[in-house]
Amino acid sequence: MIIELLEKIFSWTSSNKSGKEAKQRLKLIIAHDRIGLNPEALESMRRELLEVVSRYVEIDPEETELSLESDQRMTVLIANLPIRQVKRFPKVRTPES
Amino acid sequence: MIIELLEKIFSWTSSNKSGKEAKQRLKLIIAHDRIGLNPEALESMRRELLEVVSRYVEIDPEETELSLESDQRMTVLIANLPIRQVKRFPKVRTPES
Repeated sequence: MIIELLEKIFSWTSSNKSGKEAKQRLKLIIAHDRIGLNPEALESMRRELLEVVSRYVEIDPEETELSLESDQRMTVLIANLPIRQVKRFPKVRTPES
Repeated sequence: MIIELLEKIFSWTSSNKSGKEAKQRLKLIIAHDRIGLNPEALESMRRELLEVVSRYVEIDPEETELSLESDQRMTVLIANLPIRQVKRFPKVRTPES
């Protein structure tokens, strides 16, 4: 049920320009209600989150799609990330490093 | 449209036990199709992503809800994070640090 809803969300955000075979993708959604996180902090958090993801999978930056939506209740950031390949030995950042 | 779908997703995942006033929340969804990311790497990535978020907002760990769903096409990790407060001066981790 949840997966079906998510597929709806991503088929809207994906441009799917040429009808060619869909790439493998990783999707990241950050949604918050009125928690008072300012746009700069959200942008900075988004950058750090993508930096984490990119240590695990190789993202194609040219085809990365980012969108930001908001209404009175919620702000939603959606990242649709085409994956070139999964890194076999991701650099795990421990809390001490 | 997307926001309405997300609210459906989160009203399903939220336990909403007592009918009391909803807390401020930040929601994180990571979805991927068959990219071959193994469960250990996904768990490790999830931990690192939450570590990034917790540098920006103070999360209530006792009421954090995590769920993992998958079908043949997609694996979806959903984190529903109650926010105690937004940190006014988040420790931004630069690529050099």
